[in-house]
Amino acid sequence: MSPAHDLEENLAFTPKFDANGLMTAVVTDAKSGDVLMVAHMNEEALRKTIATGEAWYFSRSRKALWKKGETSGHVQHVVELRVDCDQDAVWLRVDQQGAGACHTGRRSCFYRAVPLGKSGAAALEFRDADKTFDPDLAYKPKL
Amino acid sequence: MSPAHDLEENLAFTPKFDANGLMTAVVTDAKSGDVLMVAHMNEEALRKTIATGEAWYFSRSRKALWKKGETSGHVQHVVELRVDCDQDAVWLRVDQQGAGACHTGRRSCFYRAVPLGKSGAAALEFRDADKTFDPDLAYKPKL
Repeated sequence: MSPAHDLEENLAFTPKFDANGLMTAVVTDAKSGDVLMVAHMNEEALRKTIATGEAWYFSRSRKALWKKGETSGHVQHVVELRVDCDQDAVWLRVDQQGAGACHTGRRSCFYRAVPLGKSGAAALEFRDADKTFDPDLAYKPKL
Repeated sequence: MSPAHDLEENLAFTPKFDANGLMTAVVTDAKSGDVLMVAHMNEEALRKTIATGEAWYFSRSRKALWKKGETSGHVQHVVELRVDCDQDAVWLRVDQQGAGACHTGRRSCFYRAVPLGKSGAAALEFRDADKTFDPDLAYKPKL
């Protein structure tokens, strides 16, 4: 069998990281099925997530390992972790603690829709965009 | 207001592509909420998806624009397209035509789970992994 066939059909977990050492993580709400966020994991974030059952990521902007909710308390308990056919992306179904996953103060990062069938630059439309928490309070360092 | 605030709170669609000219596209089944696949879009794939309401992607391995289902007939009708807070990822809720989205013959690319709480290399576990179509037939060039 080809290496591609093995990667797709075997039960050996051989995650593939990109040139920057990262893989894509899609995070959905285990109850609603909504996509909460898209983030990235390096090998250490993936290992910590598997070991602890709580979501860890790697921040590309801060270049640092990051436990989701470490400041805000909005921890993500992982209900199920799946890997895709070519093992370069993971899907986390999570029990989202606290009021939301998005640093803007919303439950999901995907709070704007792109109108379809329009040519040119159409304006976005808000969807489920009410803020569920105050990010200025949630992310303020605790004294 | 800061540029980051504008990007997050405004209704101007200003998609951000990475150094390779790509952005991440998460695709979920509009009915079940399951993640079907993770793919990438360049500017042209995004533009065609918005204009036609059918999903187009950019294949990193083939370095080519690609209409989902062009060979297999497993087209994706986009029910809703959303963009995330920093506008570098999109979420497509689709009405998946045909038997599935994965080139391995399954409905979803995420047909294996990673066991949690285990240290070391635990074996993956199949989830919803029955094949729903024969990829050798679906992707065979039509004569």
